[in-house]
Amino acid sequence: MRIGAAAGSVAVYQAMTRLGHAAGTDFRGSPDLSGAKKGTTVLVLGAGLAGMLAAYELRKAGYSVRVLEYQNRSGGRNFTLRGGDTLTELGGATQHVKFAPGNYINPGPWRIPYHHQGLLHYCKLFGVQLEPFIQVNHNALLHNSDSFGGKPQRYRDIMTDFSGYTAELVAKSVNQNKLDQPVTEDEKQDLLAAMRGWGLLDKNYNYVKSDFTSLRRGFDKPQGGGPDGAPTPSTPFSRHDIMKSGLWEWLSFNMTYDMQTTMFQPVGGMDMIGKGFAKQVNDLVTHNIKVTKIAQDGSGVTVSYLDNNKGGAPGEAKADWCVCTIPLSILSEIEVQAGAPMKAAIQAVPYASSVKIGLEFKRRFWEQDEQIYGGISFTNQPISQISYPSTRYFTEGPAVLLGGYMFGPAAYAFAGMTPEERVQEALKQGSVFHPQYGSEFSNGVGVAWSRMPWSLGCCSMWSEQARKAHYKALTEIDGRLVLAGEHASYIGCWQEGAILSSVSAITRLHQRAIGAA
Amino acid sequence: MRIGAAAGSVAVYQAMTRLGHAAGTDFRGSPDLSGAKKGTTVLVLGAGLAGMLAAYELRKAGYSVRVLEYQNRSGGRNFTLRGGDTLTELGGATQHVKFAPGNYINPGPWRIPYHHQGLLHYCKLFGVQLEPFIQVNHNALLHNSDSFGGKPQRYRDIMTDFSGYTAELVAKSVNQNKLDQPVTEDEKQDLLAAMRGWGLLDKNYNYVKSDFTSLRRGFDKPQGGGPDGAPTPSTPFSRHDIMKSGLWEWLSFNMTYDMQTTMFQPVGGMDMIGKGFAKQVNDLVTHNIKVTKIAQDGSGVTVSYLDNNKGGAPGEAKADWCVCTIPLSILSEIEVQAGAPMKAAIQAVPYASSVKIGLEFKRRFWEQDEQIYGGISFTNQPISQISYPSTRYFTEGPAVLLGGYMFGPAAYAFAGMTPEERVQEALKQGSVFHPQYGSEFSNGVGVAWSRMPWSLGCCSMWSEQARKAHYKALTEIDGRLVLAGEHASYIGCWQEGAILSSVSAITRLHQRAIGAA
Repeated sequence: MRIGAAAGSVAVYQAMTRLGHAAGTDFRGSPDLSGAKKGTTVLVLGAGLAGMLAAYELRKAGYSVRVLEYQNRSGGRNFTLRGGDTLTELGGATQHVKFAPGNYINPGPWRIPYHHQGLLHYCKLFGVQLEPFIQVNHNALLHNSDSFGGKPQRYRDIMTDFSGYTAELVAKSVNQNKLDQPVTEDEKQDLLAAMRGWGLLDKNYNYVKSDFTSLRRGFDKPQGGGPDGAPTPSTPFSRHDIMKSGLWEWLSFNMTYDMQTTMFQPVGGMDMIGKGFAKQVNDLVTHNIKVTKIAQDGSGVTVSYLDNNKGGAPGEAKADWCVCTIPLSILSEIEVQAGAPMKAAIQAVPYASSVKIGLEFKRRFWEQDEQIYGGISFTNQPISQISYPSTRYFTEGPAVLLGGYMFGPAAYAFAGMTPEERVQEALKQGSVFHPQYGSEFSNGVGVAWSRMPWSLGCCSMWSEQARKAHYKALTEIDGRLVLAGEHASYIGCWQEGAILSSVSAITRLHQRAIGAA
Repeated sequence: MRIGAAAGSVAVYQAMTRLGHAAGTDFRGSPDLSGAKKGTTVLVLGAGLAGMLAAYELRKAGYSVRVLEYQNRSGGRNFTLRGGDTLTELGGATQHVKFAPGNYINPGPWRIPYHHQGLLHYCKLFGVQLEPFIQVNHNALLHNSDSFGGKPQRYRDIMTDFSGYTAELVAKSVNQNKLDQPVTEDEKQDLLAAMRGWGLLDKNYNYVKSDFTSLRRGFDKPQGGGPDGAPTPSTPFSRHDIMKSGLWEWLSFNMTYDMQTTMFQPVGGMDMIGKGFAKQVNDLVTHNIKVTKIAQDGSGVTVSYLDNNKGGAPGEAKADWCVCTIPLSILSEIEVQAGAPMKAAIQAVPYASSVKIGLEFKRRFWEQDEQIYGGISFTNQPISQISYPSTRYFTEGPAVLLGGYMFGPAAYAFAGMTPEERVQEALKQGSVFHPQYGSEFSNGVGVAWSRMPWSLGCCSMWSEQARKAHYKALTEIDGRLVLAGEHASYIGCWQEGAILSSVSAITRLHQRAIGAA
């Protein structure tokens, strides 16, 4: 039905070609909100992506929309820090960002998987230019302070040796007919061929030092030109060291659906998306409004607020319907007139703390000295990772990298530090990868999400249990109120969750409003 | 010594930081050619990258340089076809390229690995802008006509299932203590943890259908927003089918050093590099010169040629030294006055045939319908692969993909067809991936390297035997003549080979010319 009704040739094509493959996305195009009754009013709370999307589509459908936003800007957690920006956190600590022109850090979302088709759709629609975000870099580094004498190793070396030894183990057990499950002679040959090819095993099914294995892990003396061009192979690590290091974990992480290629980022900073959305709906948004109560009865919704444009004067807004996108961490402290199930759901979801550190250096030493262009180095230290900029490669002058990105205990520890201490600690830990940190550092910024007054955390962390008990109640329309945002989706902590939850929320609200559901 | 002598802080940094890791490149910066005797003349044959680099560096060092080039343009095998271009091959078949403005195909080199530091150095020096080239795309397709009923499968599905079953096999054999080699209890635990984590095994070390494995291979019903947001997992293929398919081969291929991330391509087409080089040295180049003989004696080199600027009139050029970058496929048919070992070497290296097909379609259906942004789909059909453009993602209007790229027998078969037949055959084979081929096709071009009169092939194919017998003689200076080009390197078929061989050749020639070697 969707296929027939919805739209033009693209939709049909999508339906056709998807028959053969998993679709990869739950997004089916802009929502169909036809038949809206003129004059129906909707109040949207929060001008993040979910709220702005709701405002955009509902106005387009004919609704009268107004958006209330706590901050003095639209975008919500979609934001970018540049030189000249100021960030004040709970407790009052204020950071003045000193990055050089053109440099930035994305404290919130920073990458877009290919299957986040809802977000990609609106990026295209709103003219947001995208460029590839490099997740995997085979020349980046992996580090475990307890392995390899605490020395970081190249991603490609760990990857090659891990595959080699794993394949060797399979080949040996298959060759010795020692598997519990019988492997037929037919499959045995397939398996041996696969292990030899994928693991780069020699004719005896051993993973050994050779030109062959070095064509994946790199040579000690690289291939060159002229009479002295012959390479010399590099020496694999031992199987014991590779397996013990646990560094395979990062290979595994990078295979995750959300980390696969091709990823994207907006050219110039993630807030190009927030700005792209805002360009469409900013005339509907009143900033600096702190919502204090959401009331409703059979005839409509009344939202009470303090108007920080007027020294905190109290005010009220009324509408037929309300789409609330306020993060649950904040909403749980606001009086909401809703049924017990939704109220319980609002209280049931803890929010992740997360910290991101942006460090500006005088030059791209990771490119110039180390041949690392974009991608991520990982460590078991609290900073967890260093992400190199996936833009303006090969340029001279200062550049900003992500010097730390943490969740959980490490994030709480960093949130407890002053911003300056966060930066210093990130410098100390990161220098295990890059001794140049000391001489090349220019300035930095450390953003602790648990200390952002407007979100009190980074994003929702649904447990399986909470999901079972509360998700339905959180997402279903309660009277005249519906919630949207990444917390109202199965794609938590991603912008796509905000988009898909908002599309779902306004589609259902529309059906309710026109009396169809 | 190199470290001390050469250059500024970057070189020192490189040396320092390299101590810890394989360097990844044999390039050590622009060659040091100081002390050249004024008035010394060098004749360079061929205005490809090797020849132009030689001309650039030698002139900078103080030599008097002249370059002779057979074609009416500089760049050699570095070239790009755009709408309006014409290509005539042996036998006279002429193709008029009809691509829309901004679209192109690179018939020769098309990607640059991060470790090709020589080429990257000169790109930066000559202002050639680069952007990421996407090699691996987890959402692209893998196809074996004998597997899965001939249906292409997603890269991510094959990757996930292959890892899962491989890990399962290791875990089983380790758990059963059935390996020939003893695995200590300590390593056993490491191995089991690694296999479970990397292979996504369940608590019994089985690879099974679950949300867990679907978070790598993708869901059947994707994660969404709102009440219906719960995903449903996808079903893995059987181990037998995965191993039998041989599709693991492409996973393996993409792990190769030369295929690793981060790769680059010039913005706007590969010939931006050739043009960047040409901008530096084109005043030294005479085009349309067909070299017929290279003679030398103790005092200099004499090159005989036919001047196609003058109706093929014979002519001669003289110099103290000669750098010859003519492909061996052509040079082997020219009279060269050199010692027997070099002459034998020139005859010893066969050249690869290769065919590339560029197909323009009315729209980016691979992006719009299939969510494939850049990257490559592979097949066991003769076309071997389809490479989607790694540029101008999400744009409307016509776009060009690489509809086939083959070496060996498939290349000879395609070279034997008319250009139109090549395109039709690529369309037929490629439609196994994309049924849209039929309705969306606009126009195409098929380049058969064995039929290019100026190279008679794509690049040198050294056998190990030939390398042992002839490489030294090919690359060493013979009297006043030295050869350069990808054929004179261990990085055959890559532009980096041309760069490094040229740097090596002119460094040695310079030493000889100033009497230091």
